[in-house]
Amino acid sequence: MKIFVVGAGYVGLPLAVAFSKSLKVDCYDIDKDRIQELKNGIDKNKQEGGKLINKNLNFTNHLDIKNNYKFIIITVPTPINGHNHPDLSHIENATINIAQLIRKNTVIIYESTTYPGCTEEFCIPLLEQHSNLKYNKDFFVAYSPERVNPGDKVNTLNSITKIVGSNHSKTCQKVTKLYKTICKSIYQVSSLKIAEAAKVIENIQRDINIALVNELSVLFHKMNIPTNEVLKAASTKWNFHCYKPGLVGGHCIGVDPYYLSHKAEQYNYFPQLLLSGRRFNENMGRYVATQTIKLLIQNNINPSKAKIAILGFAFKENISDFRNTKVIQIINELKNYNIKLNVFDPCVSKQDVKKEYNLTIHDLKNIKSKFDCLIVAVPHKEFVKSLNHYNHFFKNKKNKLIIDVRNIFKTKDLIKQNFKYFQL
Amino acid sequence: MKIFVVGAGYVGLPLAVAFSKSLKVDCYDIDKDRIQELKNGIDKNKQEGGKLINKNLNFTNHLDIKNNYKFIIITVPTPINGHNHPDLSHIENATINIAQLIRKNTVIIYESTTYPGCTEEFCIPLLEQHSNLKYNKDFFVAYSPERVNPGDKVNTLNSITKIVGSNHSKTCQKVTKLYKTICKSIYQVSSLKIAEAAKVIENIQRDINIALVNELSVLFHKMNIPTNEVLKAASTKWNFHCYKPGLVGGHCIGVDPYYLSHKAEQYNYFPQLLLSGRRFNENMGRYVATQTIKLLIQNNINPSKAKIAILGFAFKENISDFRNTKVIQIINELKNYNIKLNVFDPCVSKQDVKKEYNLTIHDLKNIKSKFDCLIVAVPHKEFVKSLNHYNHFFKNKKNKLIIDVRNIFKTKDLIKQNFKYFQL
Repeated sequence: MKIFVVGAGYVGLPLAVAFSKSLKVDCYDIDKDRIQELKNGIDKNKQEGGKLINKNLNFTNHLDIKNNYKFIIITVPTPINGHNHPDLSHIENATINIAQLIRKNTVIIYESTTYPGCTEEFCIPLLEQHSNLKYNKDFFVAYSPERVNPGDKVNTLNSITKIVGSNHSKTCQKVTKLYKTICKSIYQVSSLKIAEAAKVIENIQRDINIALVNELSVLFHKMNIPTNEVLKAASTKWNFHCYKPGLVGGHCIGVDPYYLSHKAEQYNYFPQLLLSGRRFNENMGRYVATQTIKLLIQNNINPSKAKIAILGFAFKENISDFRNTKVIQIINELKNYNIKLNVFDPCVSKQDVKKEYNLTIHDLKNIKSKFDCLIVAVPHKEFVKSLNHYNHFFKNKKNKLIIDVRNIFKTKDLIKQNFKYFQL
Repeated sequence: MKIFVVGAGYVGLPLAVAFSKSLKVDCYDIDKDRIQELKNGIDKNKQEGGKLINKNLNFTNHLDIKNNYKFIIITVPTPINGHNHPDLSHIENATINIAQLIRKNTVIIYESTTYPGCTEEFCIPLLEQHSNLKYNKDFFVAYSPERVNPGDKVNTLNSITKIVGSNHSKTCQKVTKLYKTICKSIYQVSSLKIAEAAKVIENIQRDINIALVNELSVLFHKMNIPTNEVLKAASTKWNFHCYKPGLVGGHCIGVDPYYLSHKAEQYNYFPQLLLSGRRFNENMGRYVATQTIKLLIQNNINPSKAKIAILGFAFKENISDFRNTKVIQIINELKNYNIKLNVFDPCVSKQDVKKEYNLTIHDLKNIKSKFDCLIVAVPHKEFVKSLNHYNHFFKNKKNKLIIDVRNIFKTKDLIKQNFKYFQL
């Protein structure tokens, strides 16, 4: 038995590696450079160290219709376009391409996050059209949402519960059996839509909860109340969920709410809550920039002559992924004011950032003794250090300004060491 | 040493009972009937069964200024008025009244939920004015938010962590020592405001999270997706919080968001998230009523001739408290349509409901064989029974309509037993 994984990214690669322990796997990606690197045993995302070279695992950017795959798993990205609407082009292309690989009884499994109904209403008609075969007669479809949490070493594919949904109960059983070989437990649901809905709401809940603490942070700052102490105290209640204020980007939380609300509008339902997280969180970068400028002026530093360092560009800590990072909002807002800044990040690829944003990522070793203000935007482990470490990065020892976006420093230490600060 | 507890309600009574195990306690309430009942060993709220008669515990509705209390604890209600603004009249009256009991070094502890700043800006000036004594010189103040969860037998006063905050560190120590005698653990914070803020945000977080699942329920109903199955599936993710759709009333979750937003507006900050839970949840009663009418019409029952039973009136299951219950929204909306209904609730006091809402609560034994539609609004244990139990309540066996507000029935059972249903 041989399986085909479409997409060799954050979702597809770990899946292909896991399955290759017991099955033959062809892992496909349209990106030739990515496939070449993987063939050479290199994963630039640093998810799958030495496990890439393996006789069961074949990387390819070529669709070979001579193959007969029992399972085809689609893990391509489902981003949003410039207008925050779903961009289904990757899933559309992948679906059309793999249609030619479908044989009698092939099972196609979608893992990409999307709105409920996408698989049935968008993908399956494409599969039928381009394969000339019949859904639920010739071929079968399941949806099993990915739950990859980049940078998380605890909740990995083999330790989590994975949802499997299909409108065809025998297919659900088959796919469950398949995933049982790589996951700790499987949770079956009785339709594609339920599985799609379950996935998309997980990130919406997270988005809204972070937005709430962001709003509390904004309000409590006005009221001169330390948000982090309030959150710590509230977290002593048995049913309080401890979220921390911050920028919320990335390709899941920053994207999924738009998918569900897009579908909702088709039903003439205009969501009140679903997007409230986005509405608030999409302004946090600008808020951080404004607080930076305020702190500069309060300390008699001319913003137009100030030198600012931004520490961190990835969308979260200790990963190289910067898709939909909200640090760019801080940068763009400060650039609007013609304020000069240097961005440092030891995790992201300098070339990729240059290509995507035309932005230079500087070397950490060039950070010393130059700055008026540090914005610690992403708590990469290289940045989570005692304050002493930061002392010598400043041009002027009287004015050591720190914007602590993720509350990595203790307030009393900032005060004791005479930093001027803003903490979210 | 003697302590004085102001308010013998859901918060004050358990506190007075707990302290009376080791200390002399005078427990005061303005409600003479309540005090008389408690003297007779009866707690109509059924929180504190046989523990009321105790030589250390004295119930009174009389302020005796000959007493010298080391600690005065205020636990009076902080409701909202008809315009959803904080009603501080109880806390104002209690504060003015106990001012005459203040002696050198008395510590006044507030437990009532309120907005951050209320104790400092509203209560303390009243204490100074009516005692002619000086705050932080003659008398001292702490804030220790109540975390009473009516009906919860697990998270009780002696098993939870209690927050203690004061602007005066010695007072914080003193009050910590006091509560240590009755609580499992104490969490100290460095100001009154932090303690006030921690409390008020706990319920706001809950309100918003329930509002989110309520919105998902409304949307998924339109999309013909079973919300409860989606929520169950999502709950298999390690960081998903399982909330269930429903009416959100009561004197905490239904009230606290208004307290914080009231204070926010003083800072010219108009909250986007804080009230989003209220905005949505305040319409759920009307939504349930609309779905009821739709189900009646779909099943060819003339709504104006229909007989409807509402099961449950309390603001949550297995308690007698009906303050700020949202079941009244269902009732009022149906009454707007001149639809006849009977309300059943084995937990609430019939007299109190009559007095407060001019509404008759019927005996459960009169429920049989009369109705077209049952709205199971509150899952009191008397109502959480198998569907067989409900079969004979209906006038017409062909039309057995059930509105299952809290999803207590299994959908497949409703279908199998031929009920017509709506589940939130």
